[in-house]
Amino acid sequence: MSTNTLENNPLREQLIEHVISLFRDTMPFNQLLGLQFLRKQHDIELHVPWQQSLTGNPLQKILHGGVTATMLDTIGGITAIIETIRLTPCDELANLQQKLATMGTVDMRVDYLRPGRGTLFVATAAVIRKGSKLTVCRMELHNELGDHIAFGTGTYMLG
Amino acid sequence: MSTNTLENNPLREQLIEHVISLFRDTMPFNQLLGLQFLRKQHDIELHVPWQQSLTGNPLQKILHGGVTATMLDTIGGITAIIETIRLTPCDELANLQQKLATMGTVDMRVDYLRPGRGTLFVATAAVIRKGSKLTVCRMELHNELGDHIAFGTGTYMLG
Amino acid sequence: MSTNTLENNPLREQLIEHVISLFRDTMPFNQLLGLQFLRKQHDIELHVPWQQSLTGNPLQKILHGGVTATMLDTIGGITAIIETIRLTPCDELANLQQKLATMGTVDMRVDYLRPGRGTLFVATAAVIRKGSKLTVCRMELHNELGDHIAFGTGTYMLG
Amino acid sequence: MSTNTLENNPLREQLIEHVISLFRDTMPFNQLLGLQFLRKQHDIELHVPWQQSLTGNPLQKILHGGVTATMLDTIGGITAIIETIRLTPCDELANLQQKLATMGTVDMRVDYLRPGRGTLFVATAAVIRKGSKLTVCRMELHNELGDHIAFGTGTYMLG
Repeated sequence: MSTNTLENNPLREQLIEHVISLFRDTMPFNQLLGLQFLRKQHDIELHVPWQQSLTGNPLQKILHGGVTATMLDTIGGITAIIETIRLTPCDELANLQQKLATMGTVDMRVDYLRPGRGTLFVATAAVIRKGSKLTVCRMELHNELGDHIAFGTGTYMLG
Repeated sequence: MSTNTLENNPLREQLIEHVISLFRDTMPFNQLLGLQFLRKQHDIELHVPWQQSLTGNPLQKILHGGVTATMLDTIGGITAIIETIRLTPCDELANLQQKLATMGTVDMRVDYLRPGRGTLFVATAAVIRKGSKLTVCRMELHNELGDHIAFGTGTYMLG
Repeated sequence: MSTNTLENNPLREQLIEHVISLFRDTMPFNQLLGLQFLRKQHDIELHVPWQQSLTGNPLQKILHGGVTATMLDTIGGITAIIETIRLTPCDELANLQQKLATMGTVDMRVDYLRPGRGTLFVATAAVIRKGSKLTVCRMELHNELGDHIAFGTGTYMLG
Repeated sequence: MSTNTLENNPLREQLIEHVISLFRDTMPFNQLLGLQFLRKQHDIELHVPWQQSLTGNPLQKILHGGVTATMLDTIGGITAIIETIRLTPCDELANLQQKLATMGTVDMRVDYLRPGRGTLFVATAAVIRKGSKLTVCRMELHNELGDHIAFGTGTYMLG
C-alpha cells in the first residue's frame, strides 16, 4: 500500500521495532498472556502457544473467549500503528511517535467461529480503511492446523 | 421478566450457584484475572480490582482492552445462562444443565468509551433478547466512581 | 449533559432546525422512506408509519431489515450532530456548520430483536461517548405498542 | 465447500432459483431499491445502479448509508440461505424450504470505508461460519471502479 517500503528508511524501521517492543516488553497484560510478535515481511503476526491458564472450560482445553478478543484487539492495534508509520513521511515520524501514546481502540466486533482448540494460536490483521484519524482492520485467529477460530473488525484512533 | 422467582425453587437456585461456581472456580483464565462474581438479587455483577498485571500501558495504569473485553464477554455469558435458567420450567432444568457445556459466544461488539482508570472495575449486563436458542445481552463496564468505561453487545447460543 | 440549553441561544437552536431540515427535506432516500423527525425537548425521535413498500416479506407485513438499519443509522447520526451543536460554544457554531457536510457514520452494529410488526415505528438514540472527533450512540427501534424491535450502536465522525 | 455442486441436482437448483425470485420479485423494499441479483457460478452478486432517490447528501451524489446497510444485509442473507441449500442433503430440501420463511438476521456490523460514489454498486458475500442454526457471512460493497466502499459482518439464523 505504501510506496515507501520498510527497507528504505532506517528511522521508520526503528520506530516499528520500538512499537513492537512496547507491546511485547512493557505491557503487563500482554506479558501475562505470553503474546509473541513475529515480523513477516511487511506484516506482523501474533502467536500464543496453548497454556492451561488461558483456557475457559478446563475439561475441553478450549481457549477462553477473552484471550481470543485480546489477541484480535492487539494484532489489530499494532497493525494499525505500523501501517500509520509506513504511510507517514519521514520528517513527520518524530511527531507521530509522540502521538502513539494516545492511540486506542474505538470499537471492535469479534465473531467466534469455532471452539479455540489447538497448540498454537496465530492472529493476523489487514488494514481495510486508513484515514487521517481512524484506521479499520480485519483480524483473524487460526490454530496451527489453519482452522479459522475467530474473526474480528476493529476501529482504531490515532492522535 | 420471569414469574418463577429464584426464591421459589431450590433446584433453580442450586443450578445458578453451580454455574457461578463453574465460572469462578474452574475456569483458569477467569482465575488468572481474579474475576469476582457477586449476586445482587436477580442480577449478577463481575468485579475486578485494579492490578498492575491487567494493564496495557504501564505508565498510565490503564486497564488493557483485552481485560475489558473479557469482563464484558463473561458477564454477558453468565447473565444469558442465568436468565435461561430462570425461564426454564423446573422439570426441564436437568436437561438444561447438560446443555450448558455447549453454551458459547457467537459474536460481541465492544465500545471503548473512556480509558480504563480506577481501582475497581464493575461489569453488569442485561438481557435484551431471549430466544429459544439465542440470547442477546447489553453489557457495561464502570469504575468505582461510576465512570462509564466500556459498553458491549453480545449474542450467545445455548444448546 | 450540556450546561447551555437549547432555549438559551437562538443561533444554536437555528442550527439544530437547519440540520433537521437537511435530513428531512433534502436527502432523497430519507424522503423515499417517509422519515419523520419529531423534536421532544432535548431529544429527537424518528417516526415511520408502516407502508407496504417498506416490508421485506409481503405476507407477514414485517419491516425490511434495511429500513430498520436506515432508521437506526439516521437517528444515531442526527443525535450525534445535535449533541455536538449543544456542546459547541456559540462563537464556534459557524465553524461547526461548515464541518457538518463531512460528518459520517464510521461503523454501526444492528441487533434485530423481534420481527418488525406494527403500524408505527419509532427510533430513538442516546449519546454514550462524546469525543472531539468521534461520537458513539446507542439507538433503539420500538413499535407503537412499545415492543423493542431492534437495537443498535453507531460510531460517528464529525469534522 | 459442498461436494454436491449445483449442476448435479435439479431440486437444489430449483430451490435456489426460487429463493432468488423471492428476494427479487416479492419483497417490496427490495423492489423499491431496484436490487438486481446476478448468479456468478456458485456465488451471487447484488447490483444497484446509482439513482438520485438512493442518495443521502443530494449535492455530493453519495449513496445513503441505509442503502449500503440494506445491500450488505441482503447479500449476506441470500448467501447464507444458498449455502444452506447447497449443504442440505436432497431428501431434506423440502423440509428446508418450509423453514426459509423463518430465516432472519440476528445482528450485523457495517463499516463505512469510503463515501459511496459511483454509477454501479456491487455487493458480494462469503460464508465464514456455517453451523446447524447460525450462519455468519462477511459482506463487501464496491463500486464499478472496484473502490471498496463498505464492509460488513452478519449473523443469520435459519429455522
